[in-house]
Amino acid sequence: MTAEAAGTQQDAPEARHMNLEPVVAKLTRLFGDRATTAASVRDHHGHGEGYFPTRAPDMVIFPHTTEEVSDAVKVCALHNVPIVPFGTGTSLEGHVAAVEGGVCIDLSQMNSVVEVNDEDLDCRVQAGVTRKQLNEHLRDTGLFFPIDPGADASIGGMASTRASGTNAVRYGTMRENVMGLTVVTADGRIIKTGGRARKSSAGYDLTRIFVGAEGTLGIITEVQLRLYGIPEAITSAVCQYPDMESAVNTVIMTIQLGIPVARIEFLDDVQMQACIDYSKLEGYEGKPTLFFEFHGTEAGAAEQAEQVKAISDDLGGSAFQWTAKAEDRTHLWQARHDAYYAALALAPGKKGIATDACVPISRLAEAILDTKKDIEESGLVAPIVGHVGDGNFHLVLLYDEGDKEELGRCKALIERMNHRAIAMGGTCTGEHGIGMGKKHFLVAEHGDAVSYMRQVKKAFDPENIMNPGKMVSL
Amino acid sequence: MTAEAAGTQQDAPEARHMNLEPVVAKLTRLFGDRATTAASVRDHHGHGEGYFPTRAPDMVIFPHTTEEVSDAVKVCALHNVPIVPFGTGTSLEGHVAAVEGGVCIDLSQMNSVVEVNDEDLDCRVQAGVTRKQLNEHLRDTGLFFPIDPGADASIGGMASTRASGTNAVRYGTMRENVMGLTVVTADGRIIKTGGRARKSSAGYDLTRIFVGAEGTLGIITEVQLRLYGIPEAITSAVCQYPDMESAVNTVIMTIQLGIPVARIEFLDDVQMQACIDYSKLEGYEGKPTLFFEFHGTEAGAAEQAEQVKAISDDLGGSAFQWTAKAEDRTHLWQARHDAYYAALALAPGKKGIATDACVPISRLAEAILDTKKDIEESGLVAPIVGHVGDGNFHLVLLYDEGDKEELGRCKALIERMNHRAIAMGGTCTGEHGIGMGKKHFLVAEHGDAVSYMRQVKKAFDPENIMNPGKMVSL
Repeated sequence: MTAEAAGTQQDAPEARHMNLEPVVAKLTRLFGDRATTAASVRDHHGHGEGYFPTRAPDMVIFPHTTEEVSDAVKVCALHNVPIVPFGTGTSLEGHVAAVEGGVCIDLSQMNSVVEVNDEDLDCRVQAGVTRKQLNEHLRDTGLFFPIDPGADASIGGMASTRASGTNAVRYGTMRENVMGLTVVTADGRIIKTGGRARKSSAGYDLTRIFVGAEGTLGIITEVQLRLYGIPEAITSAVCQYPDMESAVNTVIMTIQLGIPVARIEFLDDVQMQACIDYSKLEGYEGKPTLFFEFHGTEAGAAEQAEQVKAISDDLGGSAFQWTAKAEDRTHLWQARHDAYYAALALAPGKKGIATDACVPISRLAEAILDTKKDIEESGLVAPIVGHVGDGNFHLVLLYDEGDKEELGRCKALIERMNHRAIAMGGTCTGEHGIGMGKKHFLVAEHGDAVSYMRQVKKAFDPENIMNPGKMVSL
Repeated sequence: MTAEAAGTQQDAPEARHMNLEPVVAKLTRLFGDRATTAASVRDHHGHGEGYFPTRAPDMVIFPHTTEEVSDAVKVCALHNVPIVPFGTGTSLEGHVAAVEGGVCIDLSQMNSVVEVNDEDLDCRVQAGVTRKQLNEHLRDTGLFFPIDPGADASIGGMASTRASGTNAVRYGTMRENVMGLTVVTADGRIIKTGGRARKSSAGYDLTRIFVGAEGTLGIITEVQLRLYGIPEAITSAVCQYPDMESAVNTVIMTIQLGIPVARIEFLDDVQMQACIDYSKLEGYEGKPTLFFEFHGTEAGAAEQAEQVKAISDDLGGSAFQWTAKAEDRTHLWQARHDAYYAALALAPGKKGIATDACVPISRLAEAILDTKKDIEESGLVAPIVGHVGDGNFHLVLLYDEGDKEELGRCKALIERMNHRAIAMGGTCTGEHGIGMGKKHFLVAEHGDAVSYMRQVKKAFDPENIMNPGKMVSL
């Protein structure tokens, strides 16, 4: 690893000579009552759902169009004022903290579905459309958009963090499902990347440079997305296991056999008990548990379920509890989506740190068991939950906000979990992103390649005004 | 569109002051008899399978390791000598022509399968491994690698052109199936991108910057690939149609219904007759034809076939001709893969220009019918074939090498076809790439975004030594 990649070379930005006053004046003139410097609004925009302290921007604006975003960026660029894009504020690694101040561009009012091409199974949305809003909009088309992070995040934010969720094992992540983008670049130009063809060999893949870039290269204002037909049949099942190994090995066998499960979610004993209590799930015990969902034709979904059941039975799983009724399914998956809140409810008054890692599936049992052991030794309460079909698992570490020693133990545990994942050929984050919290893991994971990431940053944002202090910033 | 994107700004490279003599001497010392300046070898490396004139490099070397590639690149970089990476020489848009001379790095002797992780359904190969070699290597594992461009191309070359083929409708392209890379960058550094986790939100997606970059940003020396379990059941079917609309509409309906066909290939009447003659296909007529393949469990593959058959029957397709026997299937798909050679055999002595475009599926019938009309009006012989499940179709235009007027008509037809595809929201190339031949279409398709592609090029290769004159070079 070179000194540069290791972060020891000091090319950290000098103190920024930004000129805030004219920016505030100009943006107020342009945006009227859609521009504000009110402390409460600024504070609200200075943090996500992570454990990072609030770093309020100096101003918040609410554009309605790509052209308005472009106008605002041009003003900021002229005066060297940082810009932080903001969707729903549900990111976890300090992505929206305005660490150098500047202007927060809140895209939540850019919430129109621009077009739905049902014949081509694609659509175009403004960046502020949320995933639930999109699926509500699609309700009568027979189509759906499968990517579902825990929060009802905005599509622009989901693209920017390369989000995924419970359906990724079958439908892929934002990486696979964003077909093209409209982006406002650091000098305020508007570009379109990608297109509506299912594949293309035309030029560098700019779309996938911006997907996962966390707003550090430009601001995504529109997203072209792949859609999918709602399957003819959807069935869910829950199965409980005597121990974690049996549950994880059921996942591994299922993936290795290529059974096209739509969802396969793991909850450890602690998390399952938390969900039972929080979401009033009846008929279950606080044991290692898998939630499954099968999509297909009636016969196809049934066949997948039988195949998985056979594997599960062999490994000591309980009888499958079926939930074919849409209403029961919704309740079950809402409970899964509320796992974070269920975890928080384990220790009222405590805060939670949600973190994730992802490993090759053959190392999943080892990664989770070692992490479980770390948790026991740490004395912390930290339920494990995961999109385990992808090898992705999450931890919610509970701590007292005033208790620095406890927070230290949380951080030490995260260090061990992520370095272990990297050593296994995995990644320090499957879907949460780098933000402020995981910059050092990025270097540990990608070594010298990080110096090329910095070159990309310089190519798109030479003045470092786009969401500075995140991802590859020193 | 800015002047820069339109290519009118003159930042074309000045005449290169390269210093060939010491490079030849040093590389001869390093590579011994794996370095050559023999004219026959140089000529062989100066062209692909496209219609572009041979532009021979000054020297060809045959490294065995990533470190050797790195050593060679360092020597070239020191003396500002261009580098052209070479796989199997089967690209179609002049990708390997040494337009500014320099050193061709032939990777064909880097042909080891580094590792196969059958539990994780992935593998790592050196860049010179070909797709058939890989599948031969995997024979006893129950796994396969699905991406299959027409030629038995190298995996490194396939990654570099973002290749796909007949299975892409089900399994994706190189974009979706490359998990990580080892790359030698323009200054000779070795970096690793991506990893073995199924998904990651860690940093900019360098992997997908190099995939499709046609060797203009660095040299891919190793590739981590996704693999798939060989399906329990594979069945193929052929169906013939009274007219092109019926065939194409069968494709459109199949995709819109989300039936997970593994392959759905179109051959127009001219191409089908060519294949019948060339590959001795019995029992078929020279009519618009679809070749299908269904992968799944026994029941699943049969169900898919029934669903497609119902659509096809409605649209006037002939009775399905089944080819469940592996031997017959292989013959059928070999005939499909040999379509290019079958097309050439239509007019012995003539050359062929293979070109492609890709459109949203709803526009596919129109795109193909308009192209067919253009062909009729042009007086050219130009069979149409396509991976139509993705909206991707190909033309082989036959022309006399000495007949400039005929070549002109070919080029005019390609212009119309590609501009039409772009106007439909599609792309000027689904899988062949830009190379030298489609640089102007890239600008037509991506407008101002091309100026950012040029920024990427400068970030990775500031001296423009990596495969100059291709993709975004002016």
